[in-house]
Amino acid sequence: MSLEKLDLTKTADAETYQKDLAHLKERLGVLQRTLRDQKIPVIILIEGWNASGITMTVHEIIQSLDPRGFSLHAIERPTDEERGHPFLWRFWLRTPPRGRIALFARSWYSRAITEEMQKPSWEKSLKGRAARINNFERQLADDGTVILKFFLHITKEEQKRRLEERERNPLTAWLVTPSIWNLHHHYDDSLPVIDGFVERTDTEYAPWTLVEAMDRNNAILRVYSTIVRTLEKRSEAAREGRPRKGKQKDLPKPSRTVVHRKTSANGEFTKEECQEQLSTLQIEMLEIHYLLFKRKIPLIIAYEGWDAAGKGGNITRLTRFMNPLGYYVVPIAAPTEHEKEYHYLRRFIKHFPRGGDIAIFDRSWYGRVLVERVEKFASEPEWQRAYGEINEMEDDFLASTGGGIVKFWLEISQEEQLRRFQQRATDPLKVYKITDEDWRNREKWDKYDDAVDEMLARTSTEIAPWTIIESDNKWFARVKALKTVIATAENLL
Amino acid sequence: MSLEKLDLTKTADAETYQKDLAHLKERLGVLQRTLRDQKIPVIILIEGWNASGITMTVHEIIQSLDPRGFSLHAIERPTDEERGHPFLWRFWLRTPPRGRIALFARSWYSRAITEEMQKPSWEKSLKGRAARINNFERQLADDGTVILKFFLHITKEEQKRRLEERERNPLTAWLVTPSIWNLHHHYDDSLPVIDGFVERTDTEYAPWTLVEAMDRNNAILRVYSTIVRTLEKRSEAAREGRPRKGKQKDLPKPSRTVVHRKTSANGEFTKEECQEQLSTLQIEMLEIHYLLFKRKIPLIIAYEGWDAAGKGGNITRLTRFMNPLGYYVVPIAAPTEHEKEYHYLRRFIKHFPRGGDIAIFDRSWYGRVLVERVEKFASEPEWQRAYGEINEMEDDFLASTGGGIVKFWLEISQEEQLRRFQQRATDPLKVYKITDEDWRNREKWDKYDDAVDEMLARTSTEIAPWTIIESDNKWFARVKALKTVIATAENLL
Repeated sequence: MSLEKLDLTKTADAETYQKDLAHLKERLGVLQRTLRDQKIPVIILIEGWNASGITMTVHEIIQSLDPRGFSLHAIERPTDEERGHPFLWRFWLRTPPRGRIALFARSWYSRAITEEMQKPSWEKSLKGRAARINNFERQLADDGTVILKFFLHITKEEQKRRLEERERNPLTAWLVTPSIWNLHHHYDDSLPVIDGFVERTDTEYAPWTLVEAMDRNNAILRVYSTIVRTLEKRSEAAREGRPRKGKQKDLPKPSRTVVHRKTSANGEFTKEECQEQLSTLQIEMLEIHYLLFKRKIPLIIAYEGWDAAGKGGNITRLTRFMNPLGYYVVPIAAPTEHEKEYHYLRRFIKHFPRGGDIAIFDRSWYGRVLVERVEKFASEPEWQRAYGEINEMEDDFLASTGGGIVKFWLEISQEEQLRRFQQRATDPLKVYKITDEDWRNREKWDKYDDAVDEMLARTSTEIAPWTIIESDNKWFARVKALKTVIATAENLL
Repeated sequence: MSLEKLDLTKTADAETYQKDLAHLKERLGVLQRTLRDQKIPVIILIEGWNASGITMTVHEIIQSLDPRGFSLHAIERPTDEERGHPFLWRFWLRTPPRGRIALFARSWYSRAITEEMQKPSWEKSLKGRAARINNFERQLADDGTVILKFFLHITKEEQKRRLEERERNPLTAWLVTPSIWNLHHHYDDSLPVIDGFVERTDTEYAPWTLVEAMDRNNAILRVYSTIVRTLEKRSEAAREGRPRKGKQKDLPKPSRTVVHRKTSANGEFTKEECQEQLSTLQIEMLEIHYLLFKRKIPLIIAYEGWDAAGKGGNITRLTRFMNPLGYYVVPIAAPTEHEKEYHYLRRFIKHFPRGGDIAIFDRSWYGRVLVERVEKFASEPEWQRAYGEINEMEDDFLASTGGGIVKFWLEISQEEQLRRFQQRATDPLKVYKITDEDWRNREKWDKYDDAVDEMLARTSTEIAPWTIIESDNKWFARVKALKTVIATAENLL
């Protein structure tokens, strides 16, 4: 599949065009409502050369859509905030909820193409970036999203002609900036980069359609009919109960060593010894936090553990002297109805830190393979798929930012948990901390135990390993957590 | 109330400090949970000179808070996107939901002070800005938010000492930038501006506490005890069912002329005549849209009207040739559970356009005084208050951006509505457009009629007047809407 193989002489007859288009518009209008009822999310992205007709094409598509059911994203240069995050972050936030259509006028590809083009040898880095994009698109597709990608192709000569035409029109002349001309002069350099991306990201779950866009009518009919045909097929399949199969890659390799969990560590530590160590470590943490901030390195710290294992107290000690403007705690509760309308990872990615920030997650995305697995909020294929998705997400964050991820499992014994539950139940200042749900979860200890084992084995990767915090002695646990964070952060500096 | 009247020699004894602080922290922890259950939102903002201890104070406060129930906002320079919106826009988006605490390290005041300071004669513009801030704070307070404002005061000499100390410490030296020193040199110029703001914005509903911050411990106790005392009082009042009374300003003057509604206009217009006019006007609109975009002038177009009055078709015709990247349609449905946790205006303000964009609201904030009034989703004091709040909001948008607001009421007769309902019910392509709710609403025609009358009378202001679109003839309606938008936009150029 290559732009150069397109037959650019194709045109559409004006009369047929009007008739065909009217018919397609009607079908798309109906389809939008059907897909809404079927809760199928759709991403349509229109890429192409400057002056190839992206805006016009988008315009024609939205003519047949109910504004209540779609959003249009004009992708321009990223904002300051977006620039502080990995490449795909802002696109994750723009994914459509179930039953909605997200239309992109330019997309992640435009930025990827522009950036790769500027590298002297882009082949290798294009490969890595295409792989990241494929992960992103595959995860959305596995979650049920239909993804349609279009590239509008015109020749260099035609582009020149159109840009000159725009320059002659006083209403559009100002749009033709020097940087647009500059891109035009690099047309021939861009071509192989675009082809490279198209080749590597033309997948079954997110296929490309290359569009002959020399003739306006031909381009619009091509885009419209592809959209309508694909969506009709998908809608039909859903109606007949043939949900699209997940395209799960091979499972990622878990770390070879099984992760052993212990509830207490070797050696004795008195509360006083720990407190003394803590004070020193907290000051050390303060200094390291400054350095991370100064060098704009982001850090994620995820806390998981048994109920009453001491996550809250541990976090408080960790952050004791940190500058509150440079870290934040993200408490994770059950997803809201709104959040459930999206891919489950989106609500976590949203809170990922910018360079220099520390994001502390009080429970995390691992809920997918813990509580959602045990309580059956996620289906088995869903949580099985999650291990790989999570590994990919963490890998993407680390590779794109140069940051770090610390993952804590706070382990306590069943006896210690019981003791703490009883203590909470009788202390008027702590009674709010214990709920019926805690007691119910406790009864499912064995099921959770299995889920924890599998999680640790399958997601303790070399780049983002789990650390077991032996937490029967909560003072020791606090020291160990702080030491671990400091060691990880030092490695990043 | 003035910074210069503070007794800066105040200190707190170290031993008492520890004891008092521990006690206050415990009370604040309990209070947070009580306020959450009582659904009372809280804003605490800490302002002060550079190096006066803002970060440290914030740090002490969050020590006693459960991270699940508060958010911390470190206010720095606005992002590109925020810069494109009115001054208070980004703060509207950061207001806390019911039962939560939003803590601001610096706030709308820092930016206001910095900007006013730079004006040669700031007295007058400070007055205007303070009035806008008061409106913002009063609207939140009327909605139940507790607002606490602190300014940490130190002398110029002390500030110099602290900045020099920071410069000597390698960990903090880089924080002391030339612009920080520059602000230090303008200490004396800032003082009257700060006092000016404090004086004009020290209100019953959002009082200032000026804090002697030469002594760290004294400052922290002062802030902490004020917070705890105020919140305990408010929580007590809520428990005893003494809700804080709204501080509604005098009602804004409605336009003197009563707005007459007609369902059809004088003169005859055939469908063909209208269509011809429409084509010309759509081209004209395209050109004006370009100019607005180029000059970064934002425009709001709000559509209200009877069910089946033709809002959707009208919007489609209005946008027929507009560049889709420069406008968006915001369809307004009933608020979600999440949206209900905030001030009702927040979800509209969120979608207000940046300079150069056109935001078209398909139904709007006027729902508060229409459907929410008639269906009793809002209490009478709430919707009565809304007229003034809405006028303030529109005024703020216009004054801060130089943009425009067009408000359409689409009027049809009861007979015409019935005809259209019946048509929809029998057309398979349109049947989805008609619901049982439409028929129920129709039965309440008279109640809606009264609400519309009052809305038009009380919110048709000189700066943002209503335009009645006679819509029995939908073709005429489309022509009139387009003409109105074009005329308004031309006035802005």
